[in-house]
Amino acid sequence: MDLEHNNSYWGMNLKWPSNFQDIIQSKGTLLAQRFLVALDNKEPEFVQKVAEELWMKIWSRDEPIGKVENIKEVCKKLKIPDFDTIITEINSEKVKNQLKQNTDEAYNLGAFGIPWIVVQKQGKEPFYLFGSDRLHILCNELECEYQGPLKNLKKN
Amino acid sequence: MDLEHNNSYWGMNLKWPSNFQDIIQSKGTLLAQRFLVALDNKEPEFVQKVAEELWMKIWSRDEPIGKVENIKEVCKKLKIPDFDTIITEINSEKVKNQLKQNTDEAYNLGAFGIPWIVVQKQGKEPFYLFGSDRLHILCNELECEYQGPLKNLKKN
Repeated sequence: MDLEHNNSYWGMNLKWPSNFQDIIQSKGTLLAQRFLVALDNKEPEFVQKVAEELWMKIWSRDEPIGKVENIKEVCKKLKIPDFDTIITEINSEKVKNQLKQNTDEAYNLGAFGIPWIVVQKQGKEPFYLFGSDRLHILCNELECEYQGPLKNLKKN
Repeated sequence: MDLEHNNSYWGMNLKWPSNFQDIIQSKGTLLAQRFLVALDNKEPEFVQKVAEELWMKIWSRDEPIGKVENIKEVCKKLKIPDFDTIITEINSEKVKNQLKQNTDEAYNLGAFGIPWIVVQKQGKEPFYLFGSDRLHILCNELECEYQGPLKNLKKN
């Protein structure tokens, strides 16, 4: 119900995956995470779009992201340059270690879920927010107005 | 930190009780809950004010609410008429059973925490919201604007 209410609030169309445990626990998202790291090394400007597309595959269209062929589909759709080379990097030690380091960094900051937001104001200690339902708190701390969902914002 | 950020957002001054487990688990709030039921039977218009005062004792002023003397203090402060009679009702079977029924009712609706909000729109199935961080969702479902905290609202 929370998902349905949030869909209405945000103007989204998210759906619970038909086999959540299978996707998250068995198949996992490790491959996709490593791909994002490899992509960030080569074509960083595409990272956000690819992450969004992978997220929409799971959370809106109930599509798999666990295999290399799924990653390739995303790359073709988003026209990632020379994506075959990037895909060969997925299982390199360099990329594996980078993902471990990123994970360790988040863990050491105290992250216990995502989104994990790091707020660093000039001359102040950083602080952390957990959850997509803390945006009003984030804006309050940054002393700016929280406008809520921008439902009429056109997607590129 | 979430409490501190919410204090800033809502203009409140809540503090984590110095011995949370002791208050919630050992001493408990059963006496206070039964008193609220007894009060609702005799002086229902005072229920909200007393509930707020009890809540502020725990969550803002780090004061105990577990004993009859604590309840009496609240009654005196809020000028509850004939409160001694109401206090003698706390341990009556009638009041105990009413609280059990209230609890069962919430449990059977699926409540797993408080605040548990029941939303009943005319001609529709009721639905439920959990948490003080779902007020924007509540307003969206009721098709009214969520204005956020009314920091300048004067307290009576």
